Amino acid sequence: MLKECLENVRKTVPLVHNITNYVTVNDVANVLLACGGSPIMSDEAEDVEDITSVCGGLNINIGTLHKRSIEGMFRAGKKANELGHPVLLDPVGAGASALRTNTALELMKELKLAVIRGNISEIKTLALGSGTTKGVDADVADAVTEENLGEAAAFVKSFAKETGSLIAVTGAIDLVSDREKCCVIRNGRPEMGKITGTGCQLSGMMTAYVTANPENRLEAAAAAVCAMGLAGEIGWSRMQEGDGNATYRNRIIDAIYNMTGEELEKGAKYEIR
Amino acid sequence: MLKECLENVRKTVPLVHNITNYVTVNDVANVLLACGGSPIMSDEAEDVEDITSVCGGLNINIGTLHKRSIEGMFRAGKKANELGHPVLLDPVGAGASALRTNTALELMKELKLAVIRGNISEIKTLALGSGTTKGVDADVADAVTEENLGEAAAFVKSFAKETGSLIAVTGAIDLVSDREKCCVIRNGRPEMGKITGTGCQLSGMMTAYVTANPENRLEAAAAAVCAMGLAGEIGWSRMQEGDGNATYRNRIIDAIYNMTGEELEKGAKYEIR
Amino acid sequence: MLKECLENVRKTVPLVHNITNYVTVNDVANVLLACGGSPIMSDEAEDVEDITSVCGGLNINIGTLHKRSIEGMFRAGKKANELGHPVLLDPVGAGASALRTNTALELMKELKLAVIRGNISEIKTLALGSGTTKGVDADVADAVTEENLGEAAAFVKSFAKETGSLIAVTGAIDLVSDREKCCVIRNGRPEMGKITGTGCQLSGMMTAYVTANPENRLEAAAAAVCAMGLAGEIGWSRMQEGDGNATYRNRIIDAIYNMTGEELEKGAKYEIR
Repeated sequence: MLKECLENVRKTVPLVHNITNYVTVNDVANVLLACGGSPIMSDEAEDVEDITSVCGGLNINIGTLHKRSIEGMFRAGKKANELGHPVLLDPVGAGASALRTNTALELMKELKLAVIRGNISEIKTLALGSGTTKGVDADVADAVTEENLGEAAAFVKSFAKETGSLIAVTGAIDLVSDREKCCVIRNGRPEMGKITGTGCQLSGMMTAYVTANPENRLEAAAAAVCAMGLAGEIGWSRMQEGDGNATYRNRIIDAIYNMTGEELEKGAKYEIR
Repeated sequence: MLKECLENVRKTVPLVHNITNYVTVNDVANVLLACGGSPIMSDEAEDVEDITSVCGGLNINIGTLHKRSIEGMFRAGKKANELGHPVLLDPVGAGASALRTNTALELMKELKLAVIRGNISEIKTLALGSGTTKGVDADVADAVTEENLGEAAAFVKSFAKETGSLIAVTGAIDLVSDREKCCVIRNGRPEMGKITGTGCQLSGMMTAYVTANPENRLEAAAAAVCAMGLAGEIGWSRMQEGDGNATYRNRIIDAIYNMTGEELEKGAKYEIR
Repeated sequence: MLKECLENVRKTVPLVHNITNYVTVNDVANVLLACGGSPIMSDEAEDVEDITSVCGGLNINIGTLHKRSIEGMFRAGKKANELGHPVLLDPVGAGASALRTNTALELMKELKLAVIRGNISEIKTLALGSGTTKGVDADVADAVTEENLGEAAAFVKSFAKETGSLIAVTGAIDLVSDREKCCVIRNGRPEMGKITGTGCQLSGMMTAYVTANPENRLEAAAAAVCAMGLAGEIGWSRMQEGDGNATYRNRIIDAIYNMTGEELEKGAKYEIR
């Protein structure tokens, strides 16, 4: 199934509209190309409806919010909803500022979101209405661990039910859930946290996966998480002495570029709860 | 002649003012440094006239348009025209949204453009007033091929005549034309399309080439296209197992950095029609 | 002492709020992660006070000024001052446009700046009220050389006294000074000037160093300069045939990522004047 999800991206080349932050936007574009999709970026309110109309999916990332881009997010999201395109929300830094928290909550209220993907602190903030996100990183106290995994899985399922969206919580252990099933994924490397934007990249790629697999969105979202984590493992295995996070960033995108469905199927480490 | 064009860039270190999208802007800056130019970015309407005044050329790229940056494009462009600096327009996504198409057409009307560089769908959109650009990529139906090359060359010549600008259409086969001559260039690799922003990079570099070669703008624009394509070939030849589009991006800029006039002269594949 | 400065960054993981240009922002984020800090970017006026409140230091870089981000700079800076967080100003392109020069001078007037870091032309512009910055590069006529070093050191000391800020002037020879002492640093490679944003990266990293070493800000700022220069040397030593400025960019960040306090102590080339 993971194999089919990956291959459907390469076959259908989904065009993904990204309204995303200017920090990691280039990596998001390159990872979308690497996985077989095609990126376009536009956040100007007067441009986004046309752009989202020629795309298949919409990725909204609030990493560097501006007043004008917020308006663009709502207009693009409503148009994408009208057209039946999947919309993903990446609530970067929700919990770290009122503007971010409130914008994310407003987007959840006004738009039909296919997926919400963030770190555990961001997702808790959205579920509880306030949070303790440490800048753009999760609060250590919130971390999903083997000890609290059952509780965490129940939380994401219940939030998926409440919102009607797939919920993807990424960290050392990743959870991807609809109201009934929770995929627990253990791919990846801790060093990925030393690269800016691996989460943003995953959101872009997940939008492509969900767009290319309309009948199997949960599996597609989980496949994207597995692919990113596996790329982190493959990329790390290619690191040489003296290499650091800049080289690692490139090697991860390279690994996405070269990944086959078979490799993904074989390398994915997940269970269903 | 290509050799002289490249060497004039390295000798005169043209300072290029870029009003460009935030997706690929870092690569545009690094490729300008790699080829021997010097980049500066500014799009705030109140900043651009001063900045363009200290530069030699202006590169306008509409990849992520904002209302404010549109105003900056007109103000910078008019000042550059006053000062006799060459202005290049890269109409990214013209045909994909009304704002992009109309802004590009307005810029063509209000400014004297030395060069317009885009993919075939973008250029057709500008020539016909509407188009079928697929996001930021050319529509396959529009592609320049060996079969329709004569027709395509005639089209760009006629559009060059109509606009008074050099027209550069890039794709598998590249065309660079004034009203009389059309250079047909066959450098490059298809994998370049899997990196975000090779077109944007070329526009930045082409502005440097045209700025540094005021007496030979057609040759300079063609030389920039050959250099980018050749860098794509050299970069590809240095790829190792496991490398992908992220590494390829770096290798192409590296190849621009190391390219000599002799190598460009020897590696360029072009004919005049 | 340099060793302790570096290790305090890795130990305390300072969260740095960056209001910076969209050209080099990704590299700034990755270098902050590489050195052991944590980056967050936000420039929207309504977002910045919340964001700076959860951070330890603030890095203001005027590389691509916008009217809205200027407002964000003042609001963030005032909040950071209130909270006692160190604020660094990188006056990119001061002297190249009135908006940049005036904004930098206004920020100096309204904010208490812990550090001002720029090239010699930018710093002279701020000291004299006008300048001859060549785009974003220093004017050759201004360069700090072995011949004018005494005069240059006296200038930065006097400007540090006048402003109450640490002054860091970077170039072939770097100067970091408070009103009494001037560190003269000779690390680095000329090829670093062929990468966009090594100055911006240094400003980000310097903010992390100063934040993590509140009792020794002069030493911390000097340590950051030594670390960046040393990374330039280490990165260069790892360059292979065919590598250029894109690969060099990655190797420098990689070298920051791998640098230990001992290596910094051993590799730093500085004297006190």
